[in-house]
Amino acid sequence: MSTIGVDIGGTKIAAGVVAEDGTVVARTRRVTPATDPEAIEDAVADAVSELRADHDVTAVGVAAAGYIDASRSTVVFAPNLAWRQEPLREEVEKRVDLPVVVENDANAAAWGEFVHGGGRGTRDMLLLTVGTGLGGGLVLDGELVRGTGGMAAEVGHLRVVPDGHQCGCGRTGCFEQYGSGQALVRWARALAGTDPARAARLLELAGGDAAAVTGPHVTLAAEEGDEAALELVATLGRWLGEGAGSLAAVLDPGLVLVGGGVSSAGEMLLGPMRRAFAGALTAAQHRELARIEPAVLGNDAGMVGVAHLAARG
Amino acid sequence: MSTIGVDIGGTKIAAGVVAEDGTVVARTRRVTPATDPEAIEDAVADAVSELRADHDVTAVGVAAAGYIDASRSTVVFAPNLAWRQEPLREEVEKRVDLPVVVENDANAAAWGEFVHGGGRGTRDMLLLTVGTGLGGGLVLDGELVRGTGGMAAEVGHLRVVPDGHQCGCGRTGCFEQYGSGQALVRWARALAGTDPARAARLLELAGGDAAAVTGPHVTLAAEEGDEAALELVATLGRWLGEGAGSLAAVLDPGLVLVGGGVSSAGEMLLGPMRRAFAGALTAAQHRELARIEPAVLGNDAGMVGVAHLAARG
Amino acid sequence: MSTIGVDIGGTKIAAGVVAEDGTVVARTRRVTPATDPEAIEDAVADAVSELRADHDVTAVGVAAAGYIDASRSTVVFAPNLAWRQEPLREEVEKRVDLPVVVENDANAAAWGEFVHGGGRGTRDMLLLTVGTGLGGGLVLDGELVRGTGGMAAEVGHLRVVPDGHQCGCGRTGCFEQYGSGQALVRWARALAGTDPARAARLLELAGGDAAAVTGPHVTLAAEEGDEAALELVATLGRWLGEGAGSLAAVLDPGLVLVGGGVSSAGEMLLGPMRRAFAGALTAAQHRELARIEPAVLGNDAGMVGVAHLAARG
Amino acid sequence: MSTIGVDIGGTKIAAGVVAEDGTVVARTRRVTPATDPEAIEDAVADAVSELRADHDVTAVGVAAAGYIDASRSTVVFAPNLAWRQEPLREEVEKRVDLPVVVENDANAAAWGEFVHGGGRGTRDMLLLTVGTGLGGGLVLDGELVRGTGGMAAEVGHLRVVPDGHQCGCGRTGCFEQYGSGQALVRWARALAGTDPARAARLLELAGGDAAAVTGPHVTLAAEEGDEAALELVATLGRWLGEGAGSLAAVLDPGLVLVGGGVSSAGEMLLGPMRRAFAGALTAAQHRELARIEPAVLGNDAGMVGVAHLAARG
Repeated sequence: MSTIGVDIGGTKIAAGVVAEDGTVVARTRRVTPATDPEAIEDAVADAVSELRADHDVTAVGVAAAGYIDASRSTVVFAPNLAWRQEPLREEVEKRVDLPVVVENDANAAAWGEFVHGGGRGTRDMLLLTVGTGLGGGLVLDGELVRGTGGMAAEVGHLRVVPDGHQCGCGRTGCFEQYGSGQALVRWARALAGTDPARAARLLELAGGDAAAVTGPHVTLAAEEGDEAALELVATLGRWLGEGAGSLAAVLDPGLVLVGGGVSSAGEMLLGPMRRAFAGALTAAQHRELARIEPAVLGNDAGMVGVAHLAARG
Repeated sequence: MSTIGVDIGGTKIAAGVVAEDGTVVARTRRVTPATDPEAIEDAVADAVSELRADHDVTAVGVAAAGYIDASRSTVVFAPNLAWRQEPLREEVEKRVDLPVVVENDANAAAWGEFVHGGGRGTRDMLLLTVGTGLGGGLVLDGELVRGTGGMAAEVGHLRVVPDGHQCGCGRTGCFEQYGSGQALVRWARALAGTDPARAARLLELAGGDAAAVTGPHVTLAAEEGDEAALELVATLGRWLGEGAGSLAAVLDPGLVLVGGGVSSAGEMLLGPMRRAFAGALTAAQHRELARIEPAVLGNDAGMVGVAHLAARG
Repeated sequence: MSTIGVDIGGTKIAAGVVAEDGTVVARTRRVTPATDPEAIEDAVADAVSELRADHDVTAVGVAAAGYIDASRSTVVFAPNLAWRQEPLREEVEKRVDLPVVVENDANAAAWGEFVHGGGRGTRDMLLLTVGTGLGGGLVLDGELVRGTGGMAAEVGHLRVVPDGHQCGCGRTGCFEQYGSGQALVRWARALAGTDPARAARLLELAGGDAAAVTGPHVTLAAEEGDEAALELVATLGRWLGEGAGSLAAVLDPGLVLVGGGVSSAGEMLLGPMRRAFAGALTAAQHRELARIEPAVLGNDAGMVGVAHLAARG
Repeated sequence: MSTIGVDIGGTKIAAGVVAEDGTVVARTRRVTPATDPEAIEDAVADAVSELRADHDVTAVGVAAAGYIDASRSTVVFAPNLAWRQEPLREEVEKRVDLPVVVENDANAAAWGEFVHGGGRGTRDMLLLTVGTGLGGGLVLDGELVRGTGGMAAEVGHLRVVPDGHQCGCGRTGCFEQYGSGQALVRWARALAGTDPARAARLLELAGGDAAAVTGPHVTLAAEEGDEAALELVATLGRWLGEGAGSLAAVLDPGLVLVGGGVSSAGEMLLGPMRRAFAGALTAAQHRELARIEPAVLGNDAGMVGVAHLAARG
């Protein structure tokens, strides 16, 4: 039987009917009314209704960008949405009259990759989602790691540099400040400001304004073979590899998947990441190193994952 | 039914008959013949024989300070023992004619604390064993985390300072170089060398020789209320708290247990550790913080834990 | 004979007639027309004219916030003013028909303190100007250190944390990012966002908005005895002490003066700074430590210093 | 007129008659009786006597590896010699009946390079002496920088990594722990221990023992083109460049000279050092970068420099 997966992001809500084999057989979307908790729930219900018109489904999974409590019912806190202690499961169940499962979006994405994506066949897997920020999900011994408070796998907030760059979370030196698109952009702008000759192509793409350089400018220039851009992407790869290597000492996964928008940089990113991972991981000479591979489900990972979690109940 | 737990350390082998409730009902010891793989196995078998003379047991658990493979059969590598790719399970089974389970000693200790010690009643628990080095064990969702290669929970090799102090593992800045007895001693000796007035009590205990200051000197002086020693212990506590806070972003445990010899410093260590933990953990204001408590089984943790693992089979 | 000192800041131009003993006997001000190079020079000339109406002077010194070339004639680059390769000396001489000396404002302030302020009687002195940013000036063996390119004493850009907080200069981990008012504010806002209970007084002063906390809020709360604010000021003091201690290994000054707006925090800042300095300076036990004292000339330091440089010619 | 320069090292005393043009016209040596203060002074006097038999000299300069007080008379402390508060100037003058000048050996070397070596024609110069440790000397505005206590230019103890590798001086993260032969060896041994395949040539040179790898093994292998060795030397170069770039923000020298045994690595070291220097120096785009060049006087630098200081009186 199919289930519906709903992925609530800061700007849009993506919903789909997901078959048992992970195929998304129907889709719809809504704009996220980010500042109005009830309106988000109404929009979710509305999307579900639309999909159910043509598809038999047994349950609904909802993935959201926020801290979900351990009972997987309540959104404790969502940085970019209006929810605080919102009983999301109950509110959606009330509206759709189907069993609902709620999960953090990064966890859902990890689970999606694990059951239907790049993680099939592994048992212990770390997903790093490298977008503007750095999210993550963790599967150990075949189960999603949620933690006592439901807040596990916030890998972006591992501290990698004591007294390092200020993080939006209030701490300093978080992995996210070094292993994310925002880090890439910060470095690119600094380079464009201090070494315009070396950053010539980046500046050209940004209309001559160092402060206007974006992540896509960097990846585009890197794809063209621009040396400065390639070095910036490699720097990001090295930070990702070092952080993942540090985590692998604790988690010993067989696989590290790299998803998120920045992962489109592919081998330009993953090559340096793999080398740094091997250099950073203790006892690397005594073990088989985890594979580091691109995630495969793209933006569908959360929807597919949470739909599968809903199917499991 | 009882089982036997054997804990093979670098200098001695401790073995005991462990009842279902975790009580150690009989004990024996052997010196570890560290340089001779076969002799270690003979010594284990000999200790088991002695205990079986008076006790009915159904299985034997063997904990060893080394990397154990994912099938829990082979010691891949042991830093302080002569084993390299040693089929320990098979060798011991051959000798004792009982089912044998092999586990890493720090993992076994974590399991012991989880089922019969400070971790009872929790589901997600991190054990930090603070001795000369820094070991650890991890229980998530009620199961021991072993990782794909059986090498998980090497928390001492999380990198906490890029380009930090050289670690014996070949990397730099490992948690062990900041959160262990060897770190405490390094700092104490540096202080005694550079500020003898402040380190007066430490120097007195060390016979006037900065290079002779030991961990017990520091904890003794701290117990006496010596300000310099208290500050050293608090510094260790802060590093432990910061490292644990960083890990908690990824693992979200409900409990962090602190064991090992240095944990005898008690609240002098745990107080600063708790404050640093709260300061280092992302979104601390949105969650219930993990409790940070002393481990309770002391040196028996590994023996008790591996005996329980043997009972489970 | 008296000379005129002119201090060109980002928002205002302060000018004064300075007697041989360092007394400012007359003053005037202009708003800085920051975006128009010629207008700045006209405003300087205008201020000089006004002062000369009532005072006999032999020369004019001009201090400016920018890189001044080694011949002390040209402003190579000024971050907040419109000058690029501006022949400031020539332009002002043309307008005022008196000998003109141009100097970097932080250097001028150091010289002012050295000859007429807190540095009298010393030979080797480091001035740290702790305002929004972190500037500095250096006197060694009784002479201002200007460097081959005239750009010495940019102490705010000593790197104190590899891969640390991004600096406006394009590098990371600069001393300015840890030893300045902007650092104090960054930390205060982070605290207010993550631990509102502890930051209660700061939040009250900022009208409840963590992002609205300012440096003066922190120093005011600290003066009232607020524990969180005192800890923030002490943290700034520790960074200043560690950076100064690191520099003292290279410069071995007899005195470190601390000026700038943030230095109004006085002993709340200087106490922790002194302790950190002693802890950070190599071979502290074999030397007499530099005194760390407040600067005394306040905002006049640059004007007084550059007037004295003009008198020397 | 000629003077005699004497360079007292930990193992040998080198003395020479130095002509006004810096030529060493006669030489002799003594073994350093390191544990006996008087015997060292007798050996210096003896060497001076030998040289004076055939040469007219007007003064003697003595360079010693230790902290020399500001009056250039007393050795306050010497890490590797038996002196504590030793009135070296007086003791040698008593023995040789000529005017004596005493100077720190690294300062003397910097002065030697400045007047007769690689620093001729410059005004502001930093010498980095990269041997087992990292020493330095500083000439600003044509004068040797000695500092208020005579202990300036201890560049090896600038802190470059907070909480970094423990330094023999008792602090952590000193530049010496990253920019010296001992750092190179530490890294090489770690590599040989953790990645024997990559370190194959180093291990071969060291007879297969990772702990036996030496600095000369690394430079030899690098000269042969061994990739791992080249990377190690480049890493050292990068640290030197980053540290020098950080110092250049404060000192703005026109020249950075690199001497000491490790500088024999030449462009393999200096190339990466130059690139890192440019990347680390604030406002590099607005200035002419300091030249980074090899020192030219080799082991004679201290002797030649202190002889010149003696000639100046």
